[in-house]
Amino acid sequence: MPADGASVTVVDVARVAGVSPSTVSRILNGTARVTAEKRKAVEDAIAALDFRPNLFARSLKTGTTMTIGILTQDIESPFFTRALRGIEEGLAGSGYAPLIVSGHWDAEEEAERIRLLMARRIDGVVILTGNLADTQIVEFATHQPIVALGRTLVAPNVRAVRFAQERGGYMAVRHLLELGHRRIAFIAGPVGHVDANDRYAGYVRAHMEVGLDPDPALVVQGDFLETGGVTAMTALLDSGVDFTAVFAANDQSAFGARMVLYRRGLSVPGDVSLVGFDDLPAAAYVTPPLTTVHQPIHEMGLFAARALLGMLGQPAEPVPLPDLQMVVRETTAAPKR
Amino acid sequence: MPADGASVTVVDVARVAGVSPSTVSRILNGTARVTAEKRKAVEDAIAALDFRPNLFARSLKTGTTMTIGILTQDIESPFFTRALRGIEEGLAGSGYAPLIVSGHWDAEEEAERIRLLMARRIDGVVILTGNLADTQIVEFATHQPIVALGRTLVAPNVRAVRFAQERGGYMAVRHLLELGHRRIAFIAGPVGHVDANDRYAGYVRAHMEVGLDPDPALVVQGDFLETGGVTAMTALLDSGVDFTAVFAANDQSAFGARMVLYRRGLSVPGDVSLVGFDDLPAAAYVTPPLTTVHQPIHEMGLFAARALLGMLGQPAEPVPLPDLQMVVRETTAAPKR
Repeated sequence: MPADGASVTVVDVARVAGVSPSTVSRILNGTARVTAEKRKAVEDAIAALDFRPNLFARSLKTGTTMTIGILTQDIESPFFTRALRGIEEGLAGSGYAPLIVSGHWDAEEEAERIRLLMARRIDGVVILTGNLADTQIVEFATHQPIVALGRTLVAPNVRAVRFAQERGGYMAVRHLLELGHRRIAFIAGPVGHVDANDRYAGYVRAHMEVGLDPDPALVVQGDFLETGGVTAMTALLDSGVDFTAVFAANDQSAFGARMVLYRRGLSVPGDVSLVGFDDLPAAAYVTPPLTTVHQPIHEMGLFAARALLGMLGQPAEPVPLPDLQMVVRETTAAPKR
Repeated sequence: MPADGASVTVVDVARVAGVSPSTVSRILNGTARVTAEKRKAVEDAIAALDFRPNLFARSLKTGTTMTIGILTQDIESPFFTRALRGIEEGLAGSGYAPLIVSGHWDAEEEAERIRLLMARRIDGVVILTGNLADTQIVEFATHQPIVALGRTLVAPNVRAVRFAQERGGYMAVRHLLELGHRRIAFIAGPVGHVDANDRYAGYVRAHMEVGLDPDPALVVQGDFLETGGVTAMTALLDSGVDFTAVFAANDQSAFGARMVLYRRGLSVPGDVSLVGFDDLPAAAYVTPPLTTVHQPIHEMGLFAARALLGMLGQPAEPVPLPDLQMVVRETTAAPKR
């Protein structure tokens, strides 16, 4: 038995386990559907021989690593984790395993993380929004296929998709206007965030369409987090400006705003109507359940996984990508006055 | 200029960029604090030479990969993502980058994912709970240092930590008993889940201590998810059993239970007191804000990162690990009767 595990090969493991080398390979790749008995035999052989699969060498030989890199931005954001779950589900059964890194909306960190993934031999990358320049993504795509979510980009070896955020903002405000609201506040997203800006553009368009000029005093700064919603709603109430409804640029902002209204003894939707954006899983569990714009985030993850598998020449059932949709729950009603 | 990027070395890149090879290495590792100018020069050289860092060869030479693997269970669970964020923060500034995989509470998948990470040359692993056998973890630890969270295990090259879940359950129920509740329902966690079982043991102990035998009719099955909380609370109300308070085995179950109480027109805490477990960030934003048992999940992540860095011989400021703590917010009050 070799003393150094590094010189042990899959063939050695297969011989000791009494299975074929391809069975060992498939177990190592995580793509095997084998009996518990065979798996046990292979695991015992791996332990006995102190075998450490040299994936690098293996990938040179087969040209594939059966691994996909995913760049997320914020590992704690329910928006991103919903998309990650969709990607995982989209890869299920393909034999591809996802490796996740996060870039924290910092273009330099994002690029470094993608290089870290590529240096570890992955077959392709899914990039969840972020601040990378398009040119940087195009460059990465010269090495590996890339699916970029939340981005509009046409380039070789890149598949990019983005929901119509402006239309989503328009739908939210249109819903409030149709209920009879005319003084609709907007809790903005982070300054310079393209999705937040587009949702604001939708807010403006819906107003213009009914001949209203949106009042700048009704627009307050948020940051896509609950804490920002708290600050924004507090500022709005303290300013004394008149309003009957609030459109928050995302659900987390709406949750924060809701808490302030609760604290001030204002009823939702009795005193103030509230609309969010995203339709996070939690939106259905706050009381009253939140009216919001549903982004099919989970489906977007599924779509990304299948698109990347397709680019990798794998058989992959394509999934349709539904559009944004208004979900009217219980935080909106006609204004009292 | 070599035609094949694979034969280009760090030295070639350094020469073209006009910097030292160690600067190139540090930029590739993501550990460099260099001027934007130098970084640009190196990136241009990398692009011009089509250099693809061979991390595998590099790691053989230096013996370190500056990468840490993290096995989580559910990429969408706010409990796990809070811990992941803590780990990220604990690694910040160390030069170590985290690679995340998920195991979905499936011991086989968990083991495969850890092998996948190890095959990609990582320096150590953090395992967030899961269903791996202790023996499997001990085996992995013969290859690399391992920090295991949510587990009690003493073994070479392993550092395991677990909060006192039984004590947490006891604290939650003790709080309700002190308010005067005597009919306290329990929404259980997944069958066989050790944390859920321990919290139930605390529920029983608190009752016994005041001379009460907990009524089995007050214990209903949940699954640690909002949907399970909905099912459990519905079953409890439909059973007609008498109760004035509910202890949910985690916050997500409590959110689901809260929604059912809202639907049935029962006030919290007027008609029913409610206590959760975890103190997820969202617990402070539901209305009324949830009374719960705070698990210092974020600090646990920080702790894990620093412990692993220490095991890797890195200078790492140890962080203290606080204990579980009762957080009394607004969903508990004395019973009306």
